[in-house]
Amino acid sequence: MTKFDEATQAIRVDETTYDVCLDPGYAIGGPLNGGYLMAVILRAVVDASPYEHPVTTAAQFLRSPGPGPARVRLEQLKTGKTAAMTRATLIQDDTAYIETLVTTATLGGGASEWTGEPAVVMPPVEECLGLPDPKPESNMTLNAQMEVRFDPPSIGWFTGAPTGRPESRAYFRMSEPQDPDPFVLALAVDALPPVAFSAGARGWAPTVELTWHLRALPAPGWLKIVGHGRLIRDGWFDEDVEVWDAGGNLVAQSRQLARLGRG
Amino acid sequence: MTKFDEATQAIRVDETTYDVCLDPGYAIGGPLNGGYLMAVILRAVVDASPYEHPVTTAAQFLRSPGPGPARVRLEQLKTGKTAAMTRATLIQDDTAYIETLVTTATLGGGASEWTGEPAVVMPPVEECLGLPDPKPESNMTLNAQMEVRFDPPSIGWFTGAPTGRPESRAYFRMSEPQDPDPFVLALAVDALPPVAFSAGARGWAPTVELTWHLRALPAPGWLKIVGHGRLIRDGWFDEDVEVWDAGGNLVAQSRQLARLGRG
Repeated sequence: MTKFDEATQAIRVDETTYDVCLDPGYAIGGPLNGGYLMAVILRAVVDASPYEHPVTTAAQFLRSPGPGPARVRLEQLKTGKTAAMTRATLIQDDTAYIETLVTTATLGGGASEWTGEPAVVMPPVEECLGLPDPKPESNMTLNAQMEVRFDPPSIGWFTGAPTGRPESRAYFRMSEPQDPDPFVLALAVDALPPVAFSAGARGWAPTVELTWHLRALPAPGWLKIVGHGRLIRDGWFDEDVEVWDAGGNLVAQSRQLARLGRG
Repeated sequence: MTKFDEATQAIRVDETTYDVCLDPGYAIGGPLNGGYLMAVILRAVVDASPYEHPVTTAAQFLRSPGPGPARVRLEQLKTGKTAAMTRATLIQDDTAYIETLVTTATLGGGASEWTGEPAVVMPPVEECLGLPDPKPESNMTLNAQMEVRFDPPSIGWFTGAPTGRPESRAYFRMSEPQDPDPFVLALAVDALPPVAFSAGARGWAPTVELTWHLRALPAPGWLKIVGHGRLIRDGWFDEDVEVWDAGGNLVAQSRQLARLGRG
């Protein structure tokens, strides 16, 4: 069992309740990463489902939970012949922190019938860059869990040269050897710095809603994460992310709506 | 009050319950249109919220309700200083049909700070085409509620010449004079034929999950609906829709995951 598998473990208490322990190793400047928290919730949902894969996940981020014990409460909404629908809530100290609606199904291994191309072609991984290790006091513990190599223009903001467009692109894999799976993808769709940074914004950019779809099971190897935004307006911005696997398949799509940081 | 306003009316019973009456005039070959049903649900959510606008809506389509009386049941998840989060369920005969998570907030009238361009430039409305009126027995009553003028290539499938790419584009307005508002946008994001038709698919393509974001209040006039898909695989396809208003503003974004028709 990898550290990530352990950090996302969900232990069945009964058919509607799972115990989890939120790991302080997935913090981003204090709060725990939303993708990590989705992975925890999805462990419980998939365990309780007759189907193997979390195909659609819509998450509303109500509050930011702390590390430590928590629970996932499940409500089965429908179990059909090819898919099941579940409401899953992350609860800590009797308070709901994240509310999700999840569809599980079992994806076949079929080839795609039609597929688009990535909007942006990334340079090879060896021409991409890591960001410097964050200072310990910044509480960016998430960074130690994953290896991220950025397409250089999309981190121009870090050295004071943002591109002026909302975008964020990188190669991604877990630091500990681990093949990507749907839970790693839940982390990946929310793993990059907010696309708004590249448009000049700064500060904590809380996700309000994030919906992601698992489109295929990822092949082993680096994942390519391609994020962009369409509109920054009224203090809100969208972040659209595609995850491509090493075999060139689109394996996940997500969009989140977030608030602009005031930092 | 327009016919659409009346058809989406939600009457408060108590703080968690609204009575609605699902109108047979919004059918698409039998089932009621998902965008219409979201508009009904959002009427109740917005009425019960201290905030004016449904900014994010994630909907899971469990079952297909029939016309007639139904209820919207609300659960307030969080009421914050600038936004509220609500779970809203459409119920008929004690069964849940649609489950939603909604964030309400009050959008200001501020200009956009950064905005992309539509991926496809559409010809002017007078060069776009309507589809012929459907036969009465096809039970496509929705078509009478709205005027839709398609970008010709995106309905090539109708005359046996699909473009081979998942796409659907049109100008849209209500048949009865009515300025677009957030409830009309809920209808608009699910109003066009499935993008998969243009890639050669046919038949009833049930939506499993649809999430849409209201990004600005729409100006009066025609709406432009620009839909495309990224991947058709394993019997599932995504449909990504942007709605632009007559002032050239991106006013809504949606993505749905749907099953391919077997028709």
